[in-house]
Amino acid sequence: MAGKFITFEGPDGSGKTTVSTAVCRKLAEAGYAVSYTREPGGSRIAEEIRNVILDPENTEEDPRTEALLYAASRRQHLVEVVLPLLKKGVNVISDRFIDSSLAYQGFGRHIGMEEVWNINQFAIEGHMPDRTIFLNIPAELGLERINANRSSLDRLDQEALSFHEDVYNGYQKVIETYRDRMIIIDASRDVDLVIEDAYNAVKGIIDG
Amino acid sequence: MAGKFITFEGPDGSGKTTVSTAVCRKLAEAGYAVSYTREPGGSRIAEEIRNVILDPENTEEDPRTEALLYAASRRQHLVEVVLPLLKKGVNVISDRFIDSSLAYQGFGRHIGMEEVWNINQFAIEGHMPDRTIFLNIPAELGLERINANRSSLDRLDQEALSFHEDVYNGYQKVIETYRDRMIIIDASRDVDLVIEDAYNAVKGIIDG
Repeated sequence: MAGKFITFEGPDGSGKTTVSTAVCRKLAEAGYAVSYTREPGGSRIAEEIRNVILDPENTEEDPRTEALLYAASRRQHLVEVVLPLLKKGVNVISDRFIDSSLAYQGFGRHIGMEEVWNINQFAIEGHMPDRTIFLNIPAELGLERINANRSSLDRLDQEALSFHEDVYNGYQKVIETYRDRMIIIDASRDVDLVIEDAYNAVKGIIDG
Repeated sequence: MAGKFITFEGPDGSGKTTVSTAVCRKLAEAGYAVSYTREPGGSRIAEEIRNVILDPENTEEDPRTEALLYAASRRQHLVEVVLPLLKKGVNVISDRFIDSSLAYQGFGRHIGMEEVWNINQFAIEGHMPDRTIFLNIPAELGLERINANRSSLDRLDQEALSFHEDVYNGYQKVIETYRDRMIIIDASRDVDLVIEDAYNAVKGIIDG
């Protein structure tokens, strides 16, 4: 009865948003009940929290403060947006979720995966994704794409390459640790091929 | 070398702010290096977080979101304001700290003390107060005082009496659990007596 909860993850520039929105559109065209979302996803409170996190003037933001704010934003988005959709039988595709915090705060900010996992479990109370599509791409290629495509960079985009490399390596640890949940797709290829693979994977999950 | 970290706790209307500021002033007059603070305490980020928590329009704020936001605000205030003062040898008196979250979110919001303790330990990394002055007062008397003294009530003040009773009972569990750290003062008495007792207690802690 309940919808499936599927997340898209991957380093910056891996094409998560392009691919996940395209997959969602194709599924809707094929007649599936599906909804695309990303934190803060239209939750007023989650949006306000996000503004605090990404404000480029907040350069003095402590890594643990950042991790707690992401967990708070995630919680609010989950209870206001994701869970009500799943309950109605709608399949939810979320652009990023808990694995992003494990990679960015756990490894990029060096807090450690287990500690970040714990505060996120407080936030999500066991509502883990059914499956996660991981778009794999080397850190350098991801950064090249970011710099080529975006005119204004937010605080996280401005981080040094070493941060993004730590995130990339962190993501590799995350997919190793949760490999039963992960579907890994090579996102360095042409985007149409990536969308096709991701669409087939998600369709398979929903058809169950 | 390091200053002492002393927190004031108690239900709404127990006179925490009146008493803790008076104690701080008397200590300064007596020549002690002492600083009064309360979250967000002049930290820009903690202030922004606080605005999200206390915005009266955010009626749909989930209890766990609230708990994570308090932990985030606490973290930022601790690293930006409290720890640098302690390091300089200044004694810090904080109007509320972790015990407020245990009582308000743990019991008032029914999340449970242990879970709220855990996310706060993520936030404070073991920087617990040296001692805590607990201003004890029955929930009903506290509420009477709030309603008599304040013209505009924030979102938490507007809560029903039952919430404040749960907080009161929660505080009793907190002082039972951490009794070695607590100095309990009867705050239903004349405020000058409360200030005198609190001053002597804090002076004793600083003199060590």
